[in-house]
Amino acid sequence: MIRVGIIGVSGYTGEQILKILLNHAQVKVTYLSAKLEKKQDIAEIFPFFKGKFSLTCDNLNLEKAIELCDCLFLALPHTVSMQVVPALLKANKKIIDLSADYRFETAASYEACYATSHKDKKNLTCAVYGLPELYRQDLKKASLIANPGCYPTAAILSLAPIVATHFQHIDSIIVDAKSGVTGAGRKASLDFFFSEINENIKAYKINIHQHMPEIEKELSKLAGSHAKITFVPHLIPMNRGILETIYVKFKENFEIKNLKPQNLYKNFYKREPFVRVKEEGSFPQTRDVLGTNFCDMGLKTNEANLLIIVSAIDNLMKGASSQAVQNMNIMFGFKETEALL
Amino acid sequence: MIRVGIIGVSGYTGEQILKILLNHAQVKVTYLSAKLEKKQDIAEIFPFFKGKFSLTCDNLNLEKAIELCDCLFLALPHTVSMQVVPALLKANKKIIDLSADYRFETAASYEACYATSHKDKKNLTCAVYGLPELYRQDLKKASLIANPGCYPTAAILSLAPIVATHFQHIDSIIVDAKSGVTGAGRKASLDFFFSEINENIKAYKINIHQHMPEIEKELSKLAGSHAKITFVPHLIPMNRGILETIYVKFKENFEIKNLKPQNLYKNFYKREPFVRVKEEGSFPQTRDVLGTNFCDMGLKTNEANLLIIVSAIDNLMKGASSQAVQNMNIMFGFKETEALL
Amino acid sequence: MIRVGIIGVSGYTGEQILKILLNHAQVKVTYLSAKLEKKQDIAEIFPFFKGKFSLTCDNLNLEKAIELCDCLFLALPHTVSMQVVPALLKANKKIIDLSADYRFETAASYEACYATSHKDKKNLTCAVYGLPELYRQDLKKASLIANPGCYPTAAILSLAPIVATHFQHIDSIIVDAKSGVTGAGRKASLDFFFSEINENIKAYKINIHQHMPEIEKELSKLAGSHAKITFVPHLIPMNRGILETIYVKFKENFEIKNLKPQNLYKNFYKREPFVRVKEEGSFPQTRDVLGTNFCDMGLKTNEANLLIIVSAIDNLMKGASSQAVQNMNIMFGFKETEALL
Amino acid sequence: MIRVGIIGVSGYTGEQILKILLNHAQVKVTYLSAKLEKKQDIAEIFPFFKGKFSLTCDNLNLEKAIELCDCLFLALPHTVSMQVVPALLKANKKIIDLSADYRFETAASYEACYATSHKDKKNLTCAVYGLPELYRQDLKKASLIANPGCYPTAAILSLAPIVATHFQHIDSIIVDAKSGVTGAGRKASLDFFFSEINENIKAYKINIHQHMPEIEKELSKLAGSHAKITFVPHLIPMNRGILETIYVKFKENFEIKNLKPQNLYKNFYKREPFVRVKEEGSFPQTRDVLGTNFCDMGLKTNEANLLIIVSAIDNLMKGASSQAVQNMNIMFGFKETEALL
Repeated sequence: MIRVGIIGVSGYTGEQILKILLNHAQVKVTYLSAKLEKKQDIAEIFPFFKGKFSLTCDNLNLEKAIELCDCLFLALPHTVSMQVVPALLKANKKIIDLSADYRFETAASYEACYATSHKDKKNLTCAVYGLPELYRQDLKKASLIANPGCYPTAAILSLAPIVATHFQHIDSIIVDAKSGVTGAGRKASLDFFFSEINENIKAYKINIHQHMPEIEKELSKLAGSHAKITFVPHLIPMNRGILETIYVKFKENFEIKNLKPQNLYKNFYKREPFVRVKEEGSFPQTRDVLGTNFCDMGLKTNEANLLIIVSAIDNLMKGASSQAVQNMNIMFGFKETEALL
Repeated sequence: MIRVGIIGVSGYTGEQILKILLNHAQVKVTYLSAKLEKKQDIAEIFPFFKGKFSLTCDNLNLEKAIELCDCLFLALPHTVSMQVVPALLKANKKIIDLSADYRFETAASYEACYATSHKDKKNLTCAVYGLPELYRQDLKKASLIANPGCYPTAAILSLAPIVATHFQHIDSIIVDAKSGVTGAGRKASLDFFFSEINENIKAYKINIHQHMPEIEKELSKLAGSHAKITFVPHLIPMNRGILETIYVKFKENFEIKNLKPQNLYKNFYKREPFVRVKEEGSFPQTRDVLGTNFCDMGLKTNEANLLIIVSAIDNLMKGASSQAVQNMNIMFGFKETEALL
Repeated sequence: MIRVGIIGVSGYTGEQILKILLNHAQVKVTYLSAKLEKKQDIAEIFPFFKGKFSLTCDNLNLEKAIELCDCLFLALPHTVSMQVVPALLKANKKIIDLSADYRFETAASYEACYATSHKDKKNLTCAVYGLPELYRQDLKKASLIANPGCYPTAAILSLAPIVATHFQHIDSIIVDAKSGVTGAGRKASLDFFFSEINENIKAYKINIHQHMPEIEKELSKLAGSHAKITFVPHLIPMNRGILETIYVKFKENFEIKNLKPQNLYKNFYKREPFVRVKEEGSFPQTRDVLGTNFCDMGLKTNEANLLIIVSAIDNLMKGASSQAVQNMNIMFGFKETEALL
Repeated sequence: MIRVGIIGVSGYTGEQILKILLNHAQVKVTYLSAKLEKKQDIAEIFPFFKGKFSLTCDNLNLEKAIELCDCLFLALPHTVSMQVVPALLKANKKIIDLSADYRFETAASYEACYATSHKDKKNLTCAVYGLPELYRQDLKKASLIANPGCYPTAAILSLAPIVATHFQHIDSIIVDAKSGVTGAGRKASLDFFFSEINENIKAYKINIHQHMPEIEKELSKLAGSHAKITFVPHLIPMNRGILETIYVKFKENFEIKNLKPQNLYKNFYKREPFVRVKEEGSFPQTRDVLGTNFCDMGLKTNEANLLIIVSAIDNLMKGASSQAVQNMNIMFGFKETEALL
């Protein structure tokens, strides 16, 4: 049994982590913090928890967090995490950071992407990117895990098998992503007013979204070479779920007919409990993964020398909170699926 | 042909008024204002208008508004309208105010309801309450029209026939109202964040909503006696539409079997172009009135001595903007249904 | 560990029961049936279950169901349950029936409500109405449990404390109910086509809904006298959730000021794990209970001698499937909250 | 003033045509038919029309349609239109067919796409494809207009300027389309049950949708050579609207930096009243075109030698009904924007 704290529990991802941990046999949640005007029981902030769980939540008190916890989830905006990580690491705490602050190896990459200077360059290199399907061995030994972004989780998992094995044959990659609105976090903004989103669909940050370099960084590692993508995210009138339709174009001389994508992908993920590759002719919808830690994917090739990949995750689960718990399970040697199946 | 201005065109009701006026044969829209950082063409603010209508929109300049317009729609929050009305009236302009500022005859009633002092008491008495079905004759001569609230429009129209004729037999009235979210105006608030509204329903301001006294005031006039209601509004995950389910309880000694509500209502509204009383056994849904100036209503009595009224309006149309245009049509002697049918 | 079967697993309630039981420590799901063209693994019918649970599902084979199960959930339409219950009871199986077939004590009441003759009158009297908050002791000994309807669950729980204690002072009761669409079951009907429901709200079956007599029957028992209600259900554009706004009108001579509804309700439900009475001034929304077995309620009195009750449940959970599991827990002596908190 | 009939008025597109025609100064709607159990006034079928328009609607009677109308809209499923067109043409009526029956020049193309034999091959060649931006001159003289599909309208308009001018430099084209559900027509199907669509997104008919050959046919004409695309449609939880994100990949040796797509497109469409090309950096959302006949498009190039086009239409308007009225306006020499701006 470990003692766990959630810093930033009032946002969507923090709330979701707490919901998951309540079903975890080896975790006791001992500390909660959020930006609040006055301290409140978590069941006052979220009436959902009334009768299920009770704990006072207050503004962050690092000393208390250190005293009360073995492991901390940071459900914080970027630039805030890097202000608390150094103290927590110094106190030998295990950390899973859901912000973008430790997802890049170099401050330069981070700064190019988030247009702000990095305040904790020293710890950038010790952070492990929290995608268990690629980095499970490293995560076992990690003290600081940088939990991936929601779009990158689906994109990297969808592209890893083909990029890792066929990169030299790939001409270009397009990721056309569709997301529910909780991906943007819980914030008062006219852009996310109900009637601006409802009965509407739009593309946004076309080819300039901050998750694009994160995806390219991981694909480049898999490729062993610089990998580029085109990335167009869209906002969909639903609360949760990401569907990515990915177009991998192969070079002219590549015989796509010989590619058996279902075999390749099923083999690549054969030991993975949370990746489900669908049979030929079958494709996922976001509803299939709602509230789960699964990433589902369907595959098809066509005469235009394209591999079309459709993948679905719940942005608040595999795209954030349940993947964070999966990472905790790995880091502490718990059963990886505990509280997640 | 009259020259018309819309003050506060960037909100939902202002935008909607402009959309309606573009189809009005006797109106030329000559002035638009909104709170803006810099002046912009209306088609930049709302790309919807591109290719349909072009006019520069800037922060309010009263002199310009007076110079350029014969008639002004004030699509402003309450407390703001009463700051501009005096100057406009002085300049002999015709005004249709969509805020609550001139809906009450006395400053005391206004202040009790909106908890702020009234700044233009003098003009309170000259304002006419803009419900054409009740005040058509007065509206013809009005210079200042106080356009009704959205909930009050549906509630008063639904109750007028029975209250005007049977008040002495009525024991009590309950209005259970359900509204889409545009009723709250366009504002950045976490309460109206898409995922707080979507897949959720809640009651709010139970029996303390500011529209309750507005309804009671009008019912009291119809009754010739002090009328009270119980009012419970609910927020529904849709953009537009109000459905009110109204329970009129009669006194024990009243024989409800003798009441023929369809006859009573059809007769009461027989000359009204925008009230549709449904046949026995038939009830409205909000979709039937979407984008229209209609108020639909269905009626049923039961053994509990209740008259149940279900009424539907589009909150941005008959509940605000199209009713405002109907009022303008009356005030200027245009065909009342112009641009509205 | 008991062996459990779900008959009718392809509907919303059957699917939901299976989801819940996968987290139940003392249950092994051993049998699934549904109306199918050919037998399929449940993970083919609902890709959600892939990697979580696998079992072949076929058309109902009663012999097999009897051989493989100790307990059976019937997630069937009304009139179908009563065709299978006799054989299951004869084989000494424990049954939780989610249809309406055994909710009434007499065939006459059932037939008046569902306009079809009852085929298993003999077993009507042995069925226990599955509302644990009222019938826990009887449920412990039951072999056949008639799981309540969704609207009745919220209405009866909301009214039980006041009807049981103040019935003689009550003049009349109105239940204005709002439901998401899964309450209607999964069926191909133009009425539930997405764009007929989305951006729309309507009342339906006004005062003639089949759940009204079910509510009145239970209130009458609590009152010790014939109790009548007015019941108006509404269809809301959301998947799940019921909000009921209930107006209890007291007789003129009753001093409602002396009623302390929060105290009365909190006391009535003080030992109940799944009823949450909110503090004065606070009211539930359906989101608070989504995916849970809770019924939340808020209370307010007003000068019209009304007690206003707002209550929220998830129609597929406390209104159907999780209440069915709660009933199973009680019937088998398991911890009542197992798999439900 | 012409006399117009709508055959199949009970579907989404037929209903929408009627709504538009009520605002048309030169049209009198004289005939309505739909598949009905008994004849009804249109205001009984759609309460929306009550007080706006009244006309009896009955099962199709071709003789009556011919007698009463100069022009007929066929809002029929494919295979049904071709059963009525021959008689109408013989009677010298003007026809706008919204089905797919006359969109292909050859029966073979139609049959390859719709897997059914064509029953009116003779008239295939006289039909004009109803995309005014490409075929205005032909439409002026047409007797039979084949109104384009919804996806093809957006795709062809989005691609025409670049395909017509740069086809030899284009390597490949991907159309990733997102549509609201009314695109599927009004039909009782479990696939379109509210809760199967709400809070869900999925791709469907990946690269096998019947609109793909329709798009390719038109692009091939523009290119003067065989043009192929990859087409992936998605179903979005909203009633109306199509957004297409289109990726045009250029050949390696093409210098995309020299392409000025805004100039090219603005020039191509400079005389078009219903195509709006957005400024660089600006992209459309479906809300901007809701209820209008506009097609909005935004353009961007990137380093991957891609031209990214985002285009938005209302699938029931420019994608069906308002485009049909635009075609009627052209065919009869009315002002092209009549009833549409």
